[in-house]
Amino acid sequence: MAAMDNLTPHKFQVTRAQREALNNHKGLVIWFSGLSGSGKSTIASALEQQLHLQQMHTYSLDGDNIRLGINRDLGFSTEDRTENLRRIAEIAKLFADAGIVVLASFITPTEENRNQINSIIPAEDIVHIFVNCPLEVCEKRDVKGLYAKARKGEIKNFTGIDAPFEAHQKPDITLHSHLFSVQQCVQQTLDYLHSTHKIRKS
Amino acid sequence: MAAMDNLTPHKFQVTRAQREALNNHKGLVIWFSGLSGSGKSTIASALEQQLHLQQMHTYSLDGDNIRLGINRDLGFSTEDRTENLRRIAEIAKLFADAGIVVLASFITPTEENRNQINSIIPAEDIVHIFVNCPLEVCEKRDVKGLYAKARKGEIKNFTGIDAPFEAHQKPDITLHSHLFSVQQCVQQTLDYLHSTHKIRKS
Repeated sequence: MAAMDNLTPHKFQVTRAQREALNNHKGLVIWFSGLSGSGKSTIASALEQQLHLQQMHTYSLDGDNIRLGINRDLGFSTEDRTENLRRIAEIAKLFADAGIVVLASFITPTEENRNQINSIIPAEDIVHIFVNCPLEVCEKRDVKGLYAKARKGEIKNFTGIDAPFEAHQKPDITLHSHLFSVQQCVQQTLDYLHSTHKIRKS
Repeated sequence: MAAMDNLTPHKFQVTRAQREALNNHKGLVIWFSGLSGSGKSTIASALEQQLHLQQMHTYSLDGDNIRLGINRDLGFSTEDRTENLRRIAEIAKLFADAGIVVLASFITPTEENRNQINSIIPAEDIVHIFVNCPLEVCEKRDVKGLYAKARKGEIKNFTGIDAPFEAHQKPDITLHSHLFSVQQCVQQTLDYLHSTHKIRKS
């Protein structure tokens, strides 16, 4: 009986390359930035469905599973929003390392936020999508009634109202969700991912 | 052209069941608790290799990818260790939701820590493994030289020396890594996972 004391304690972990070979695709972070109501999550969900139909291994990170989970201790101050995004970027990095195509949909309001994300996730592992929808369109939609509350002062630090949103300076893709349908936005994204070989064409 | 304004913004996300169907297995958290040097990571790595060979989609969480990543802001005070484990449990929960078998190897020193994990991850999604190796054996191994430093007072709050380790009261599996080989510990774990149908036999 060879007890563990006699063994070299080296770890021979399964590698990222082995996981990607099993999945038959690479891990990747697809990060959607844009105002509340711009359509980030809707487009991300539609894209995820397409990828899943192509047998790709996907996961979505959004407010629903992050703000109610790991980041339940964080609020919406500038400092907390920065920490919120730092943690999300670190989690997205783990998923990419796991060989998953992870879709992250978060307002990500400032260039500093996006630079922080890029300092965590290597450039080859992330695609930045700017869902560029005018504030007035997002506010008119007001799907969750949040803009109305923010205008009344019932919500503080709401992006676009009393917290800044800076246009994305160097996104890989810009989607004009007020001019094109969800499926058109998804197709534009797929065209980019295929042409840059970020994902293979099935 | 149907612009997004005209569409109901419901999200039709890919479900956990769909991801698990694609993977051909369920998501699961396998959590290894035990002293530094008890063999947690070594056994977890060997188990992960076995699962990967069976075409299972796996990922490992350990100090290497957590303490240097998302939890780089945390130290080793009782409060920080609790927050460290809370975040890890939330991340492991996301991986299980993604349909991945995630192996988490962390000292997890107290019953309070384990209860916190169980308050985050549903019981059906987690298997607790107690790598029960006597302190004197771990200290004698001292693979990383940490026990020697802790004895000299160069490291504070080191579990087993000047921070408590409570024996796991209700693990699903107890592995005696000082009496059995790595492969025997892996086989004991696989036998449990198969007999409880946590994973299918390939």
